[in-house]
Amino acid sequence: MVGEAGGLARAAVVGTGLIGGSVLLRLRDAGLDVAGWDPQPAVRRRLRDRGVAVSDTVEQAVAGRDVVFVCGPLPTLPAMLARVAAATDDRCVLTDVGSTKAEVATAATAQGLGRRFVPGHPMAGADRAGLGAAGADLLDGAAWVLCPGPTGMDAFRRLTALLVDVFHARVVPMSAPEHDAAAALASHVPHVLAGALAGTVQRSALRDAVLALAAGSFADGTRVAGGPPERTANMLLANRDRVLVELTAVGAFLDEVAAALRAGDADALTGRLAEARAARATLCARGFTAHRREFPAGADHAGELAYLRELGAAGGHLTGCRVTAGAVGYTAHLPATPPLG
Amino acid sequence: MVGEAGGLARAAVVGTGLIGGSVLLRLRDAGLDVAGWDPQPAVRRRLRDRGVAVSDTVEQAVAGRDVVFVCGPLPTLPAMLARVAAATDDRCVLTDVGSTKAEVATAATAQGLGRRFVPGHPMAGADRAGLGAAGADLLDGAAWVLCPGPTGMDAFRRLTALLVDVFHARVVPMSAPEHDAAAALASHVPHVLAGALAGTVQRSALRDAVLALAAGSFADGTRVAGGPPERTANMLLANRDRVLVELTAVGAFLDEVAAALRAGDADALTGRLAEARAARATLCARGFTAHRREFPAGADHAGELAYLRELGAAGGHLTGCRVTAGAVGYTAHLPATPPLG
Repeated sequence: MVGEAGGLARAAVVGTGLIGGSVLLRLRDAGLDVAGWDPQPAVRRRLRDRGVAVSDTVEQAVAGRDVVFVCGPLPTLPAMLARVAAATDDRCVLTDVGSTKAEVATAATAQGLGRRFVPGHPMAGADRAGLGAAGADLLDGAAWVLCPGPTGMDAFRRLTALLVDVFHARVVPMSAPEHDAAAALASHVPHVLAGALAGTVQRSALRDAVLALAAGSFADGTRVAGGPPERTANMLLANRDRVLVELTAVGAFLDEVAAALRAGDADALTGRLAEARAARATLCARGFTAHRREFPAGADHAGELAYLRELGAAGGHLTGCRVTAGAVGYTAHLPATPPLG
Repeated sequence: MVGEAGGLARAAVVGTGLIGGSVLLRLRDAGLDVAGWDPQPAVRRRLRDRGVAVSDTVEQAVAGRDVVFVCGPLPTLPAMLARVAAATDDRCVLTDVGSTKAEVATAATAQGLGRRFVPGHPMAGADRAGLGAAGADLLDGAAWVLCPGPTGMDAFRRLTALLVDVFHARVVPMSAPEHDAAAALASHVPHVLAGALAGTVQRSALRDAVLALAAGSFADGTRVAGGPPERTANMLLANRDRVLVELTAVGAFLDEVAAALRAGDADALTGRLAEARAARATLCARGFTAHRREFPAGADHAGELAYLRELGAAGGHLTGCRVTAGAVGYTAHLPATPPLG
């Protein structure tokens, strides 16, 4: 099942919690030679019990590998990346799965890893944490952001091919800052809103009565508030400025709704809700048109990089990447409907 | 299947959209004699096509019925209730399924219907509207608020028995103002937050990139923003004061999160998120303890009413109501775990 273009047959996963564990299990199920390591001895034991090749040190786990997924908590990533880089060959592709990208991308560039580190973020998760919540199907078909850089196109292509082949990923190419800006609204602010709703109920004198009535809108709207507070806090802190910008925008929208409500202005209120519905309708009813694009494999990559970033910014994604003699070919999908309103 | 205590074998449903249609289909599947009416001729035709007894006028539909569910849009309820009351016998139990209760309860009292109108609100729904989205299972096992009044205990008991028997409802007894206060946080504010999140994305220059990354937290957090704007606006306007109060509370929580984030205060941020997680943990892990309570059927109802309202305020619900010679027996469930934090 390993992608021909990827050629990344020997993999390692460092940090085998919810996401890292899911990556590892899926790679193994796909037939790759995969080694695992986790800082917690108990987790390493559980990996061994599941038949995974586990080393006692990071260095042993990653030595001789073609690709390493660095999957620990966000604040640990820069230091762990340096350790993994020092213990691997210059041809080994490195990636991470953190929920913000600018910080780790900057750290990697400072470490001189721009050629082989490809920042990554699979858009999937669960309320629970840890290996016990991991599963080979968690990331199946997920939107998976990769951040191609000007010097790292070869690594980007190989990793894209692997993710498409093994995870059936929809690879969304974006620069790290673009990812963080979009993820603020797509993921980080939703976590804050879920927390504010659940936290307000927790403080309310009516808490028990509210929970007695809690059904779809409350259950859905608070689901991610069930996640580990430290994990969510790390995510928000690592994208602080963008999250604050978008929280201000959400606050302004809330103020408009409250003003319309206070004034009893049904038209204004309906108008705001109709704006919201338009985004939701687009999300649920998007069609995509497929196309193929080729670029010379070895030449200057400026055109390829610009194409990829435009694709991601326009809401598109890749479902194929194949490098043949002298050329790289992408299969890509763009939203078919023009943006509404 | 009809409840012995209910004795409400001949039912009518007025307004057969999402909720009314679901009520009708379930009552019919349970073997009741049920008649339907909708203001839209096309909907009446579709009901007839599905084998439902449909009348051309409200008055014909409700004549001679034991119970009538009044299910149109919120603003139409007081007038429709008056029409239905005028066309039915004094022994006919009336209820509604609107998402706010104080307004319709006050209107019913003003119409002298306190003895036979029981305000109701099943806590279930869907993003779509109309008979096409209705289904006999939509309300199965739902938390279903009923508002017992001092003069309407007999109607409350019979309706409770019917809802438990036919819908397997968890009947939550509350006064109308208590319902509206709790529903503000359990349902109305979640709709506003979903709208603010989706609406902010709709206005964002990054909209397409955000939607490309949208996964669990965004999809869940915006789901109810897909509902009809007019329906949501009616709901919010009918509970305006409580919604504004709770929006202010949510805004204060958001301000605390933003301040902690701006200050880079990981401890303060984690603390707020831990409060949120506590509510979520209670919601997901509540256990209930069952008990039975009896009251004299015909005497002064003050004790029974106080018991019922305390039950709902404490997060409890009824799963049984049986009237025997001179006594009414309830099967009730209360959250087993003491409130956290």
